[in-house]
Amino acid sequence: MGPGPSNVPTRVLQAMSLPVIGHLDPDFLGLMNRIQNQLRELFRTSNRLTIPVSGTGSAGMEASVLNFVEEGDPVLVCINGVFGIRLAEVARRAGARCTTVSFPFGRPLDPDAVREAALRDGPRLIAMVHAETSTGVLQSIRPIREICDEVGALLLVDTVTSLGGHPVLVDDERIDICYSGTQKCLSCPPGLSPLTVSPKAEEKLSSRTQPCRSWYLDLNLVRNYWGEQRTYHHTAPISMNYALFEALRIIEEEGLEARWNRHRLNHEALVAGLEAMGLKLAVSPECRLWSLNALTIPEGVDDLAVRQQLLSQFNLEIGGGLGELKGKIWRVGLMGETSRAENVLYFLHALEACLHQQGFATPAGGAGLVAAAERLSRG
Amino acid sequence: MGPGPSNVPTRVLQAMSLPVIGHLDPDFLGLMNRIQNQLRELFRTSNRLTIPVSGTGSAGMEASVLNFVEEGDPVLVCINGVFGIRLAEVARRAGARCTTVSFPFGRPLDPDAVREAALRDGPRLIAMVHAETSTGVLQSIRPIREICDEVGALLLVDTVTSLGGHPVLVDDERIDICYSGTQKCLSCPPGLSPLTVSPKAEEKLSSRTQPCRSWYLDLNLVRNYWGEQRTYHHTAPISMNYALFEALRIIEEEGLEARWNRHRLNHEALVAGLEAMGLKLAVSPECRLWSLNALTIPEGVDDLAVRQQLLSQFNLEIGGGLGELKGKIWRVGLMGETSRAENVLYFLHALEACLHQQGFATPAGGAGLVAAAERLSRG
Repeated sequence: MGPGPSNVPTRVLQAMSLPVIGHLDPDFLGLMNRIQNQLRELFRTSNRLTIPVSGTGSAGMEASVLNFVEEGDPVLVCINGVFGIRLAEVARRAGARCTTVSFPFGRPLDPDAVREAALRDGPRLIAMVHAETSTGVLQSIRPIREICDEVGALLLVDTVTSLGGHPVLVDDERIDICYSGTQKCLSCPPGLSPLTVSPKAEEKLSSRTQPCRSWYLDLNLVRNYWGEQRTYHHTAPISMNYALFEALRIIEEEGLEARWNRHRLNHEALVAGLEAMGLKLAVSPECRLWSLNALTIPEGVDDLAVRQQLLSQFNLEIGGGLGELKGKIWRVGLMGETSRAENVLYFLHALEACLHQQGFATPAGGAGLVAAAERLSRG
Repeated sequence: MGPGPSNVPTRVLQAMSLPVIGHLDPDFLGLMNRIQNQLRELFRTSNRLTIPVSGTGSAGMEASVLNFVEEGDPVLVCINGVFGIRLAEVARRAGARCTTVSFPFGRPLDPDAVREAALRDGPRLIAMVHAETSTGVLQSIRPIREICDEVGALLLVDTVTSLGGHPVLVDDERIDICYSGTQKCLSCPPGLSPLTVSPKAEEKLSSRTQPCRSWYLDLNLVRNYWGEQRTYHHTAPISMNYALFEALRIIEEEGLEARWNRHRLNHEALVAGLEAMGLKLAVSPECRLWSLNALTIPEGVDDLAVRQQLLSQFNLEIGGGLGELKGKIWRVGLMGETSRAENVLYFLHALEACLHQQGFATPAGGAGLVAAAERLSRG
């Protein structure tokens, strides 16, 4: 129940352990086609260029930036957490003329300030994080898309912690470049990064005058392997692709809407339980992630001691704060397979025990569990 | 029996399918320590900075170049196959002032020509491929190391297709930067790239004035995660690390020398068989790889038809030629688990059947099988 990797279903682990075949074997090429179609369903897109990048989420971030930025291109990155900072760092290393517009960690972006920065800097690409794993904030995409339209910029969105748990509607919201990770709401081991690219962004790719700074992540080459030509580029991580295929089959069986609703319900039950225990969420209700719940550490409670007790006595991992939120929040993941009613109840129970050890008194009678169970029973 | 991925032992597949834990879980950190020690044994090195890069072999190549090259640094790449060409391409994209010295595909490097180029260009880094997967040529490292000493350059060596199958003696041969892949002679699924860096190359890393162009592969950041601090960088591909740990345990059990000898013996048996069948190896005897055998396609025989028949009728994959050797050679892998006497005999038998279909007459009485079996029985 940390900020990822989430629990992986046995079916996915079993698929991953099937014998390895060649990356140019006709059977593997057939699997690639099926994975691409699954990813299009997942991203709600018809984008031709939709693939799993051969690396974890940060490799997807890097592929998303490096391929759409050339030396000196103006790029605006919106920052309200660690992953926004990382996006800006990647953009600078890509050679972009990168400017940033920053907001307090744990708060959403202010579109007016983003617009002001965009009008000032004239970016060709604006990057934002949909689900800030470092803070638990969900950012709505629409207002940033509007700003992109006003200044003629491509929109790049990080959906590492939202894809599969929250609605991510690539075509409806007109996201140009969207990447994610497998180890969060998809409940697949870490190792691949789903990526989709709009036709407009593909045009930028085709009209580059300098090659991408990364050969490994160069989509102009990678798309020839994942495209009809199947030109060998690099050896794909075969087993990880088996795992992704099975993880996406499980999502198809559950249904995307049902999966989003499950994530929402378990999140709401967790919040009800925590609040009934006298604890506070670190993010205001209108922009809380369902997949990652940021909880303010109560005054006088030892961050590390609680997390260590949870791990050693309850076999339960949660995350601490990152960056400026270190020591101030806990991050409780309810992602993919991990988003289960029994996990919500088990966590509340375990946390209560740890807090008592720390001298933090919760209301008698298991008020937290009762509130969570009540919310769950309402469905 | 293609140019990789090689067959993966069941033990490795089973290890890979164990439940996923967090990348900062104390148990995973312990596993990381053990993997680093295993890799040091494998590379025959005491280099502190020895890690599996989170991507397939080409990601290791990119990490090896990007981290040790800054804008405008002179780099000399030795080319005698596709992977040398790729190294040069990666170096150019890294911003290096890259020059090359080229030799015919299928032939080793000529040290005199390399020395001449090095004296002319004054490179700070010379890159070479130990085992050219595209041609089957093994390149001896010592003469290139001597040239590096003469001009004061770091030595970068690609051992993707040799590590675990041929002696790779990083400390003895004073290789500064050495990378490999998991899916060749280590018989682990593709997804990680073992990398080791000498103290001298680490100095270059520490004294960089510009950040590495890749954030994902930045060893100045990655070494803090794999070092004592364990600072979070990116999410490691957990399951792939389980697999690598088990694959390296199997190598320890067999013993590295025994493994090299096994690769040599099976290679010699294959060669004996092929020659007895009237076929020709594409590489001269003194520089043949044991792990990848390049075989000249006989006049009048259809490359693709034979490979397709092998795959569909015999469930046997071999590789075609790459680059300028396309249509001219077959590449037969005897890597890791795949390097087995029964595979040598099975392949010879299957190939003979396919060649007969193509009208290519081999000596009667199974001369190829007999010659191979005889070589095997001598041990």
